[in-house]
Amino acid sequence: MTGSYVVRPIGRVESTLLDPAAAPRQGDEGAPDAWLVLDPAMKPAAADLAIGDDLVVLTWLDRADRDVLRVHPRSDPDAPVHGVFSTRSPDRPNPIGLHTVRILAIDGTRLRVSGLEAIDATPVLDIKPVLGPIDTR
Amino acid sequence: MTGSYVVRPIGRVESTLLDPAAAPRQGDEGAPDAWLVLDPAMKPAAADLAIGDDLVVLTWLDRADRDVLRVHPRSDPDAPVHGVFSTRSPDRPNPIGLHTVRILAIDGTRLRVSGLEAIDATPVLDIKPVLGPIDTR
Repeated sequence: MTGSYVVRPIGRVESTLLDPAAAPRQGDEGAPDAWLVLDPAMKPAAADLAIGDDLVVLTWLDRADRDVLRVHPRSDPDAPVHGVFSTRSPDRPNPIGLHTVRILAIDGTRLRVSGLEAIDATPVLDIKPVLGPIDTR
Repeated sequence: MTGSYVVRPIGRVESTLLDPAAAPRQGDEGAPDAWLVLDPAMKPAAADLAIGDDLVVLTWLDRADRDVLRVHPRSDPDAPVHGVFSTRSPDRPNPIGLHTVRILAIDGTRLRVSGLEAIDATPVLDIKPVLGPIDTR
């Protein structure tokens, strides 16, 4: 495939999680609340976010191995090897993390969010609302 | 924010949708079935995908305006302007599209998927399984 594109972080995760090996596999598997610290230049883009909003946060898993195409799911050596597109492994060609969270508090361009398994300093690429039923969009 | 990262497409969308202005806003709003044409080098990563799998497909919305921070939601000029992080606008700093689809057919590294609102030739960045309940992971 030809072509490539540059992603530029809009912010960073601020979390008590420091060790990738100790991080929960998913946000609903015991991950702590965390801050999304947005670039102040993003203030207009974030201005309509509100406490209680359910969001999809996209991150760049910057410690991932991008050459990995097959893995043991959930890092379990007893699990049969799978193609990474059938897993949520962080090791994959474009290591973009997807996280569903709820806004708990807002302090300027800092957003406190529920259960986030990304480790401290993980770059944030995008924030999107969770879509409700068609008639509510 | 410092730093940037390079994303490299793993494939392209092949669709009857050619005009962004005419595309449905979301996949469940009348979008046609389409093909994901993966780079043959991605075959090991895609080898465990199966007909019936529910996937999240990440795309790069390469016609988006990345300098837009506020928009009229759903391109409705009568809708109040919102920060893009509260909308699914393709115009946003990192224009990554999220699409929930089901695999309908597989032909080598070509995947036929249900209702996809991305237009023809849109770069594909990643494919992930939709997560089920915790005890099924």
